[in-house]
Amino acid sequence: MTLPAGLPMPVPDPDLPRRVRVHEVGPRDGLQNEKGVVPTEVKAEFIRRLAAAGLDTIEATSFVHPKWVPQLADAEALFPLVRDVGARLPVLVPNERGLDRALALGAREIAVFGSATESFAKANLNRTVDESLAMFEPVVARAKAAGARVRGYLSMCFGDPWEGAVPVGRVAATGRRLFDLGCDELSLGDTIGVATPGHVGALLRAFDAEGVPAGRLAVHFHDTYGQALSNTLAALRHGVTTVDASAGGLGGCPYAKSATGNLATEDLVWMLDGLGITTGVDLGHLTATSVWMAGHLGRPSPSRTVRAISHQES
Amino acid sequence: MTLPAGLPMPVPDPDLPRRVRVHEVGPRDGLQNEKGVVPTEVKAEFIRRLAAAGLDTIEATSFVHPKWVPQLADAEALFPLVRDVGARLPVLVPNERGLDRALALGAREIAVFGSATESFAKANLNRTVDESLAMFEPVVARAKAAGARVRGYLSMCFGDPWEGAVPVGRVAATGRRLFDLGCDELSLGDTIGVATPGHVGALLRAFDAEGVPAGRLAVHFHDTYGQALSNTLAALRHGVTTVDASAGGLGGCPYAKSATGNLATEDLVWMLDGLGITTGVDLGHLTATSVWMAGHLGRPSPSRTVRAISHQES
Repeated sequence: MTLPAGLPMPVPDPDLPRRVRVHEVGPRDGLQNEKGVVPTEVKAEFIRRLAAAGLDTIEATSFVHPKWVPQLADAEALFPLVRDVGARLPVLVPNERGLDRALALGAREIAVFGSATESFAKANLNRTVDESLAMFEPVVARAKAAGARVRGYLSMCFGDPWEGAVPVGRVAATGRRLFDLGCDELSLGDTIGVATPGHVGALLRAFDAEGVPAGRLAVHFHDTYGQALSNTLAALRHGVTTVDASAGGLGGCPYAKSATGNLATEDLVWMLDGLGITTGVDLGHLTATSVWMAGHLGRPSPSRTVRAISHQES
Repeated sequence: MTLPAGLPMPVPDPDLPRRVRVHEVGPRDGLQNEKGVVPTEVKAEFIRRLAAAGLDTIEATSFVHPKWVPQLADAEALFPLVRDVGARLPVLVPNERGLDRALALGAREIAVFGSATESFAKANLNRTVDESLAMFEPVVARAKAAGARVRGYLSMCFGDPWEGAVPVGRVAATGRRLFDLGCDELSLGDTIGVATPGHVGALLRAFDAEGVPAGRLAVHFHDTYGQALSNTLAALRHGVTTVDASAGGLGGCPYAKSATGNLATEDLVWMLDGLGITTGVDLGHLTATSVWMAGHLGRPSPSRTVRAISHQES
């Protein structure tokens, strides 16, 4: 895919980092939230193309029980197909059984998925926050002992459908406990997309007060209210250098078929290219990959950058 | 329409302004770029509902020749229906004849539409930049003499389909000439949506070097590449306090039927509400207005906030 010549014009901002690591979540968080089940070989090709586009961290799949996430039930078949693709390939594991399956296949990075609120911990994990942390403790310890890197996810960091706004101090205290268990990095999820830039700054300051610098955090924004990229910009200004995004904006929302999922990697990379921030990602190559994937899913990408570059109709 | 309780949580940022004026362009820039022609009475009701939602500046219509913009050919019939709605109602005028028509109907604010690039001046106005400024000179002078407020528009301020990236110094020098003619305010248009936040800062610094402070500028971003709100945030950080937006994101683009027009007023107000920045706009009321208008246009709003609050399908 060809970008408009000379655009976006790179104009650095001295208050922003020079390099950002894009943590690509399309194959896992994206496909997990799509209605259809994508064939294993298509997933493998998707991951290969993402790596070829320059993404160096691609969350590949989830070793959760197939009953809960049928879209990713082929984790065992998929992982060996992509293991040597040349990118870091974290995989989600819900518990020790999932960890065993992932390590047996040679996974070198895992992620555990916690909640900042009791309501979502109950709804998603059927546990209290304390109980879920207790469940993660042996997972993280054994992963670290096996030499694997561990990412923690913390969902509902800004608002929750049951509890409304979530106090930043409580989120930071819970997040701190995931580092205490041994997590190397923590991704702050705005699961229902209600964050705004000042709230992002306040949460990052609360983590700083807990002794967690922005360099150990990632941000994971959803575009439900169109705020994902502005929130990302605010996070970069506070020193965050790892940003989660989903190629083509994969990962829908029950309320709007093609509009309110994850931050699209292309929209993010367009902004970072325009800021002169290095990512290693080739935007034309990535856009072509998302157009190819959109063909398999049978609907256009919700990413505005993908639509603009590819002239896709909505 | 009901917002999620307590959300967005207002968290002010001390580096941002406390109050922002939203310059609503939906009835003019939005409807001008929609395929269908909306009945005059529906337009009038739209403007009344926008005013009732708290928008104090609503660009109502254009007194351009009906041959060029058939969607707004009813300016003469529409304006008297809304004149007393209780909001400022700027109208676009292309030349002295348009000015005469607008003033005769009691318009108190007008806008002229210039270009930062020679290519777009030629394509849109069939004139050079110098020739277009010469055409505006008597329009602005006579409007000011009649006691009207004058807004200038400058399009293609960041990039141009023919010339690529546009040097910020050239944009600021051209914009300065519109102030020299007597314009009270200048709206910087990213007509093809290619701006990024660092570029926004660089352009505002270039205007400052020309003796034009950010307080006299407005920003007008298009969401072609998903950057409109991030660019707005960057502009606020540089002292801009007037932001153009279109209710419901009205104003499509030929390449994507419902995705890449103007910044949606609702997405903007969600962010500003979250930052604790006063606008006077009631987001629930505004969203209901956009849903009502989407019904008349026969397609859902492209605004993510409208979709999320109203549970509209895409």
